[in-house]
Amino acid sequence: MTYSSTAIKKLLKDVASAKISSNKAFVLLKDLPYQDIGFARVDHHRQLRKGFPEVLYCPGKTLEQITDIAGIIISASSILLATRATQEIYLALKKIYPQVKFDKTARVIFTQRKKIAVGRGLILIITAGTSDIPVAQEAAVTARIMGNRVKMLPDVGISGIHRLLSERKLLRRAKIIIVVAGMEGALASVVGGLVKCPIVAVPTSIGYGANFEGMAALLTMLNTCSPGVVVVNIDNGFGAGYFASLINKLFV
Amino acid sequence: MTYSSTAIKKLLKDVASAKISSNKAFVLLKDLPYQDIGFARVDHHRQLRKGFPEVLYCPGKTLEQITDIAGIIISASSILLATRATQEIYLALKKIYPQVKFDKTARVIFTQRKKIAVGRGLILIITAGTSDIPVAQEAAVTARIMGNRVKMLPDVGISGIHRLLSERKLLRRAKIIIVVAGMEGALASVVGGLVKCPIVAVPTSIGYGANFEGMAALLTMLNTCSPGVVVVNIDNGFGAGYFASLINKLFV
Amino acid sequence: MTYSSTAIKKLLKDVASAKISSNKAFVLLKDLPYQDIGFARVDHHRQLRKGFPEVLYCPGKTLEQITDIAGIIISASSILLATRATQEIYLALKKIYPQVKFDKTARVIFTQRKKIAVGRGLILIITAGTSDIPVAQEAAVTARIMGNRVKMLPDVGISGIHRLLSERKLLRRAKIIIVVAGMEGALASVVGGLVKCPIVAVPTSIGYGANFEGMAALLTMLNTCSPGVVVVNIDNGFGAGYFASLINKLFV
Amino acid sequence: MTYSSTAIKKLLKDVASAKISSNKAFVLLKDLPYQDIGFARVDHHRQLRKGFPEVLYCPGKTLEQITDIAGIIISASSILLATRATQEIYLALKKIYPQVKFDKTARVIFTQRKKIAVGRGLILIITAGTSDIPVAQEAAVTARIMGNRVKMLPDVGISGIHRLLSERKLLRRAKIIIVVAGMEGALASVVGGLVKCPIVAVPTSIGYGANFEGMAALLTMLNTCSPGVVVVNIDNGFGAGYFASLINKLFV
Amino acid sequence: MTYSSTAIKKLLKDVASAKISSNKAFVLLKDLPYQDIGFARVDHHRQLRKGFPEVLYCPGKTLEQITDIAGIIISASSILLATRATQEIYLALKKIYPQVKFDKTARVIFTQRKKIAVGRGLILIITAGTSDIPVAQEAAVTARIMGNRVKMLPDVGISGIHRLLSERKLLRRAKIIIVVAGMEGALASVVGGLVKCPIVAVPTSIGYGANFEGMAALLTMLNTCSPGVVVVNIDNGFGAGYFASLINKLFV
Amino acid sequence: MTYSSTAIKKLLKDVASAKISSNKAFVLLKDLPYQDIGFARVDHHRQLRKGFPEVLYCPGKTLEQITDIAGIIISASSILLATRATQEIYLALKKIYPQVKFDKTARVIFTQRKKIAVGRGLILIITAGTSDIPVAQEAAVTARIMGNRVKMLPDVGISGIHRLLSERKLLRRAKIIIVVAGMEGALASVVGGLVKCPIVAVPTSIGYGANFEGMAALLTMLNTCSPGVVVVNIDNGFGAGYFASLINKLFV
Amino acid sequence: MTYSSTAIKKLLKDVASAKISSNKAFVLLKDLPYQDIGFARVDHHRQLRKGFPEVLYCPGKTLEQITDIAGIIISASSILLATRATQEIYLALKKIYPQVKFDKTARVIFTQRKKIAVGRGLILIITAGTSDIPVAQEAAVTARIMGNRVKMLPDVGISGIHRLLSERKLLRRAKIIIVVAGMEGALASVVGGLVKCPIVAVPTSIGYGANFEGMAALLTMLNTCSPGVVVVNIDNGFGAGYFASLINKLFV
Amino acid sequence: MTYSSTAIKKLLKDVASAKISSNKAFVLLKDLPYQDIGFARVDHHRQLRKGFPEVLYCPGKTLEQITDIAGIIISASSILLATRATQEIYLALKKIYPQVKFDKTARVIFTQRKKIAVGRGLILIITAGTSDIPVAQEAAVTARIMGNRVKMLPDVGISGIHRLLSERKLLRRAKIIIVVAGMEGALASVVGGLVKCPIVAVPTSIGYGANFEGMAALLTMLNTCSPGVVVVNIDNGFGAGYFASLINKLFV
Repeated sequence: MTYSSTAIKKLLKDVASAKISSNKAFVLLKDLPYQDIGFARVDHHRQLRKGFPEVLYCPGKTLEQITDIAGIIISASSILLATRATQEIYLALKKIYPQVKFDKTARVIFTQRKKIAVGRGLILIITAGTSDIPVAQEAAVTARIMGNRVKMLPDVGISGIHRLLSERKLLRRAKIIIVVAGMEGALASVVGGLVKCPIVAVPTSIGYGANFEGMAALLTMLNTCSPGVVVVNIDNGFGAGYFASLINKLFV
Repeated sequence: MTYSSTAIKKLLKDVASAKISSNKAFVLLKDLPYQDIGFARVDHHRQLRKGFPEVLYCPGKTLEQITDIAGIIISASSILLATRATQEIYLALKKIYPQVKFDKTARVIFTQRKKIAVGRGLILIITAGTSDIPVAQEAAVTARIMGNRVKMLPDVGISGIHRLLSERKLLRRAKIIIVVAGMEGALASVVGGLVKCPIVAVPTSIGYGANFEGMAALLTMLNTCSPGVVVVNIDNGFGAGYFASLINKLFV
Repeated sequence: MTYSSTAIKKLLKDVASAKISSNKAFVLLKDLPYQDIGFARVDHHRQLRKGFPEVLYCPGKTLEQITDIAGIIISASSILLATRATQEIYLALKKIYPQVKFDKTARVIFTQRKKIAVGRGLILIITAGTSDIPVAQEAAVTARIMGNRVKMLPDVGISGIHRLLSERKLLRRAKIIIVVAGMEGALASVVGGLVKCPIVAVPTSIGYGANFEGMAALLTMLNTCSPGVVVVNIDNGFGAGYFASLINKLFV
Repeated sequence: MTYSSTAIKKLLKDVASAKISSNKAFVLLKDLPYQDIGFARVDHHRQLRKGFPEVLYCPGKTLEQITDIAGIIISASSILLATRATQEIYLALKKIYPQVKFDKTARVIFTQRKKIAVGRGLILIITAGTSDIPVAQEAAVTARIMGNRVKMLPDVGISGIHRLLSERKLLRRAKIIIVVAGMEGALASVVGGLVKCPIVAVPTSIGYGANFEGMAALLTMLNTCSPGVVVVNIDNGFGAGYFASLINKLFV
Repeated sequence: MTYSSTAIKKLLKDVASAKISSNKAFVLLKDLPYQDIGFARVDHHRQLRKGFPEVLYCPGKTLEQITDIAGIIISASSILLATRATQEIYLALKKIYPQVKFDKTARVIFTQRKKIAVGRGLILIITAGTSDIPVAQEAAVTARIMGNRVKMLPDVGISGIHRLLSERKLLRRAKIIIVVAGMEGALASVVGGLVKCPIVAVPTSIGYGANFEGMAALLTMLNTCSPGVVVVNIDNGFGAGYFASLINKLFV
Repeated sequence: MTYSSTAIKKLLKDVASAKISSNKAFVLLKDLPYQDIGFARVDHHRQLRKGFPEVLYCPGKTLEQITDIAGIIISASSILLATRATQEIYLALKKIYPQVKFDKTARVIFTQRKKIAVGRGLILIITAGTSDIPVAQEAAVTARIMGNRVKMLPDVGISGIHRLLSERKLLRRAKIIIVVAGMEGALASVVGGLVKCPIVAVPTSIGYGANFEGMAALLTMLNTCSPGVVVVNIDNGFGAGYFASLINKLFV
Repeated sequence: MTYSSTAIKKLLKDVASAKISSNKAFVLLKDLPYQDIGFARVDHHRQLRKGFPEVLYCPGKTLEQITDIAGIIISASSILLATRATQEIYLALKKIYPQVKFDKTARVIFTQRKKIAVGRGLILIITAGTSDIPVAQEAAVTARIMGNRVKMLPDVGISGIHRLLSERKLLRRAKIIIVVAGMEGALASVVGGLVKCPIVAVPTSIGYGANFEGMAALLTMLNTCSPGVVVVNIDNGFGAGYFASLINKLFV
Repeated sequence: MTYSSTAIKKLLKDVASAKISSNKAFVLLKDLPYQDIGFARVDHHRQLRKGFPEVLYCPGKTLEQITDIAGIIISASSILLATRATQEIYLALKKIYPQVKFDKTARVIFTQRKKIAVGRGLILIITAGTSDIPVAQEAAVTARIMGNRVKMLPDVGISGIHRLLSERKLLRRAKIIIVVAGMEGALASVVGGLVKCPIVAVPTSIGYGANFEGMAALLTMLNTCSPGVVVVNIDNGFGAGYFASLINKLFV
């Protein structure tokens, strides 16, 4: 069974109406809080608590561990989201779970059968350069799986600011904007000066020299003089997409 | 005149209906984009563009400059918000603009006559310790001035986690949570593991030694393993309150 | 001969009772303080002084150097512990010393024939995530070789804190807890708020972006607001296991 | 009433034997988990959970807040420990609570009426230089209040290592050693090479130039090549004394 | 005598035409390379070599040393420029050299009698905020003393980018632009995307938290994606003004 | 068509004189601001605005993206400049655009058919060591493509300062000097003390240990005591060459 | 008695020749290794071991502690050297020990009655600027007290390198050179390229912005491309003077 | 010809005595200051100025460049010293210059035909661990080639301090000590407390976690409380050996 609110409410009704014995219900529910598989405790309760199942961060885990955890998530929930995945992991999972898909640019493996509440507004994802696209794509895939309309506006960095200004209409249409930028990361401040909507800034590690692997863009975004801008970790496209979805569905 | 949308629409109607000459309207509108007072260009257009007038950050400005800028903001808009203010600045402003108020803990000077759209949900501001209250208060004052219901839950740091867990009902009631924490800043991750709603984390500079003036808490919050958490600059209570208000009124 | 206290006392008795000539005893004892093999001075005295023989840290040493040092430690003591070892080192040692074992996850080569005093309480090793297991396993192997009962509780990170809270009984049973965590490393503070026993925190280099190779978790742990928490170097599972054993046997 | 285990057990017995009404007992117990005084939630449960009441860290709190929190701690528990205190705070507290004492060197205010379990072994506190004494004294006061025998051995830094070596007997007598050192902080490693017992290393901010406010000593201690050494935050004498007490009473 | 090219050429002609004895000329010239006054070697040759006399950086020097060095510069050259000066230094110098002037905002003491070659184009100095004006003013005073036309355009930071865009005509008229910005320092990149002329970026230490005393703005400017931008040290208004003058007079 | 000023002016004349229909002209001009190719917005307007077309920074882009962008730049402008390129990229481009050339040392791919205004003075590029040559060469290629006379003076580092001093004549002849130096980067300050002309300093990542990937040289150059020195990012030879060209053509 | 080699040898001879009883000699000698005065262990043995008595570093010590330690050093040795001292400390010491002198610039209190072996060559101390003189003076006082001829050559920084080059004769005469420099600290490398003798480089904290309190100069000096240069801590004039004396007397 | 003092003096005598024409002598001497080979200026004058020819640092140079520079150094001087060399470079050089030798551990290629003045005392090189040997060996090879007696004492780190203390006689015999240590680098301070002679400390990059590639050991050594210790860059064995040789031959 899956551990969504609906499924659990139905189960309890079935017990009440004696369609299912309390013993059998207990067996189904006993894994609810989490499932202990030795090296991991898969958090089934998270879907209830957070509205979205546990997300699988791949680095530092063996292929066996990833396969096992993915299997448990897939059987308990209709949504698998595995980030920083590789082609090798994808092929291993694909063999067992043919329904998984792989977004190579975003390095995300995912599968989705369940209907999810739809976000209210448009999430616009802007990148400063072409090299920032993979991180932006991770944000886009995440937000889409979570039920949001997403639009990408890549390569509108401030060295040619007319590219951004000519899209003012689109900027105004967006309900939430994710700004993905490496190098000096100034795009978030500029967008923040133009629009009214909340902005989630994602520094990327694109750059060299005194960029210090994204540190420069991170500091820029944290120190922004434009109000209405918040920041996630360097290259954390997933985090930005997730947060954007949260606020897009805050009053759904 | 004030530069709110309503005021400007009314002015244009008055021109259309010949209640006011176009010449007079021009004089009233010519400062709209910004007002140049030599050392500053007060951005009157911001209220239209961002929905909130320019905010006055006090440090690094002379008392004269602050008085002048505050005066211009007050006459153009019904909302003054001056952050990182001192008692001395307050007294100087009070003499000229008796309507200004001072929240000493938050170090914020403000004045408000205008009605503002009301945020939909409750914004809950949590602090890890008593020493984090000034930053939390800056967030609270900001969010309240912007038209939101705000509740403070101070001193629920994780060294005594039952203080937090016993407030689960309140946590669940909140639509947005601002977590203000110094030292190791771990509270944001813990709250992020408990609730569904978006969390804005504010690292504070409270701590000593390897805290490095808030760096430790900042890094903790950026690296959080709980999804749904975003970060603003160290001690930036204003930024958190502003952002929380934005998302609370996103679909108003 | 081995250089344990017991062996040396026996040797001295044998001299006293003329079972062995003083000349022969001298030859046996002359390497006691340390054995000079050119590129290394193996510290045989350490077993007497510290209660545990020298531990072999592999990186930066050639295979020949490792084989030589390991050989000397094995012949003088019944306990070899070689950390950060590779499969290649293991195979080379195995050929000469068939008794060596390899814990691949912990990257530790070890061999143990001697009885060792038993630690009094349970050492519990907790990890925040699955990716932290290798460092935790290094701590576990070390503590077990030193004569302690060890239990692992992996993947109870604070993004799903109920996984931790549901193990309160186990937490209370432990006499010493080792907390192994990467990302923001907040688990140590949370555990520190729940239990009475001493906690040894091990930051790991798991994470990305502003994690700075474990720096974020290290700072978090050093700045913990929970009393009773101490810290070792990033990824230093060995150091944590060793220290936990020391305090577990402090009054044996 | 105080919230020690003994006091609570007695209360429950009195309810059982009808010496006290359950209503009255409820009033006494309702503040057990914590007491909410607006700006703080004093954690009365901590004494039960951690074996020691909440400790009051003074910086960043107003005099009023400190007085209020101290009053609550004093009335609920027999032990007040306020760290990083000033003469001014002391005088303010002294007026209301004449029983408080002030250790000026350690910057600690404390009061103690209750008997506490006695630690089993001697805690030895070593400093590298005379300037490290205040931090060492904070550790000493903390450990003594918690019921331990403490001995100080100041100014035995390694620029004159015979001062340390001549105290080998004392080093061997100690069950736990706290090493307090600034500058390059190398003393912890040297002591760690000499003794068998656990060592808690406290880096201090004494030094200049490339010391970076204690960073140099902190890194030295974290990277120690001597096993059996753990580290607390820079200048955190309290943390070291607290942890030393914990392990000294681990099997009491 | 002054040590300008003109003065020296005249002296040599006078020797050639026997208007002055070679002995007397020698006495006048012997201090040319530099004048040793014990604690300083005032570099008279600099005016010839660099086209501008030595500039006096005040911090770290005693009032006596400043007075002595200023006196020597004034008597040898017609141009004194003393940076990071205080009111106290100014008053001390004013007593002896009534011709000195003090720009309090720029913290610069200066005096100028000599005609200097005039720079060809307009140097425009832009600031992001009002708090950046002192550093901008240091640049302005420096460039003006060196013979350039300078215009200030303060408070056009990117949180209200229309303030900048509405000055495009002025931006295009400038031959060199100095951008002075604290906080996240993104203004330099934006200006760099709009204009063709060379830009000298000056990060300021205005900001807080993760600004790290100007580090954030410095990194932003070094990592700019707009070509044609170079950087000087944090708060180094003098350096920017000096460099701007150099390039403005490169082909004079 | 190309988007140079000349080409556009000619087009407009042709429309005026009816040589070309306004419809056809519109089609030709509609891509002027930028050309949207999905993953990139190639900024054709840059040649008008900045006097030089968009430069292609290769890292982080796929081979397909690079080929596409390069194609668009080549067809719209006569100047392609692709930095940090590899042999592989070169071969891929060469197949399609046989006119491209590759400077292997500078890692720059370029092609140039159009005449460009000639810089007025000599740009001299100095390196401290042989290992700094690749970065210097990137500066040289850039400046040459932009129409400047460039001379290289490699390996005149200050450990043998006579190598530099013996070239004083050449130093004086130069109108702009680019100093490229790794290790401690002191060469820029020394040259800055010798010459009158503007100096652009480029720190390189050559060095080891406390060099921290060019950080040491960068800090040296930012803190220079010689006026007239500005700095670009570590290893940013392109930026230095570009800026040198700007100032060399400032009054052309 | 003093604890110099000569004094101790004489004492032993007196015992041998029965001029003094062994009991009395014991009393005189029992403090030899060090003298325990509670908060400090004054290392009398240092004079024998290191050839120079313990040096008193003042910061972090109370006036009482300084007076006590100074008294013990003075009575046991003829040489007191107290660094980072203040006028207040000097006046307190002067009252009790009228022989103490104070070098205000160097912030050193000292007293010297004993003859000391004379260093063989000239120690030359060079400073980059006037603001570096206090640190240089600390080195000079130290080296002079230790028996060396010292010459100061201040303010020969590389922004006017002819000031340095014109002193080549002096540079060549020196047997050891101490280079004291703040800002970018490049002087050490330049001197290192000119001379054959060993150079001790002292970075100072003079500078601003990206100087980071001397970090820039420190990194420069550590990364020097000139062989024959070693480095001491930022502002550590004492350490440089001490080391220079050591090598100047190495073969005395 | 070689460019040693002796060779040049002989040449000049030959000219004086007409054994060689002045024209021929000029040809021989014209390359004296340095030899320009395009990408490098080999500094032949260095042997006269510094007493040792230019040393070839290999990283960042192509094989061709290394071969060319090495060839010029070999033909002009009898001493080649190439550091950070690889087996590949060695084989390439060996083919052309069969006299070159390679110390694989030290990564140094060298060749030596010329007699060099002999250093007066013994240089002792101590390492903390076996992994520090390569850096120590670079120091040893350098010092030996420069004409010094060198002894190695590896693996006497302070975790077993008796290994060091048992070598006190050797420590006292040394005239200069080089201490090579990674991890926490505390060995330099300990040795500095024991001996009278000058100590050159070399931090190595051996370590992990908060070691930050040698930063920890570097800071330890810079902050040493033992006088008489100076520091070179991380892993800079060459610099230490060179400096030790300088002071060992200071009064030769």
